[in-house]
Amino acid sequence: MILEVAILDVKQNEEKKFEMEFFKAQKIIMNINGYISHQLQRCIERPNRYILLVNWETLESHTIDFRLSDEYNEWRKLLHHFYDPFPEVDHYKTIYSNV
Amino acid sequence: MILEVAILDVKQNEEKKFEMEFFKAQKIIMNINGYISHQLQRCIERPNRYILLVNWETLESHTIDFRLSDEYNEWRKLLHHFYDPFPEVDHYKTIYSNV
Repeated sequence: MILEVAILDVKQNEEKKFEMEFFKAQKIIMNINGYISHQLQRCIERPNRYILLVNWETLESHTIDFRLSDEYNEWRKLLHHFYDPFPEVDHYKTIYSNV
Repeated sequence: MILEVAILDVKQNEEKKFEMEFFKAQKIIMNINGYISHQLQRCIERPNRYILLVNWETLESHTIDFRLSDEYNEWRKLLHHFYDPFPEVDHYKTIYSNV
C-alpha cells in the first residue's frame, strides 16, 4: 500500500468553493482501480491549506491508472484552478503504524 | 479528533538510525493522554523524507499534554538532532473521509 500526500494551498476566499468541488471530485478517485481510501483535512494554523491523503494499492495505481485516465482530466478541471502554488505530490510507504 | 502532520527531513545517511530511534520514541507518544494513533511513513521520491501523522483527541492533547510534559524532553533528545531543516508541524481537521 502506498500513501499519496498532497499539501494543497487554496487561493484565499475560495476555500468553501474548493470544498464543494472536492466533494464531487472525490467520487472520481474512488472509482479508480487500486484506490483504497482517502481523507481531505483542513489546516487549523493556515485555514487555506488542506492535506489530501490517498491510500493506493501500488504507486502505479496513482501515477498510471489514475493520472493517465480520462477521469484525471475531469479531476483537473474541477480542482487544479484552486491551487496557488501548484502542489507537489509525494508518495510514502509505512515504516511504523499504530492505527 | 485532530491530525498532527510533520514532514521530517532527516540528515543524509542517518535514515536507518532515525528509524531505530523512532521505534523507541513512539512509545512515548503512545502513553500521552489524548493520543489516538500514529504512522511514520517514508517518502519514495525523497528517501530521507518521512511523514509523521498522529491523531490526537484535541489540539491541546498535542500542544499542551504532550509538548509541556517531561516525556517531550525525552522525545526531543531521541529525535530532534536528526532533522535538517527543523520541521514545521501543522494540525488538521477532517473535511471528508472515506477510510
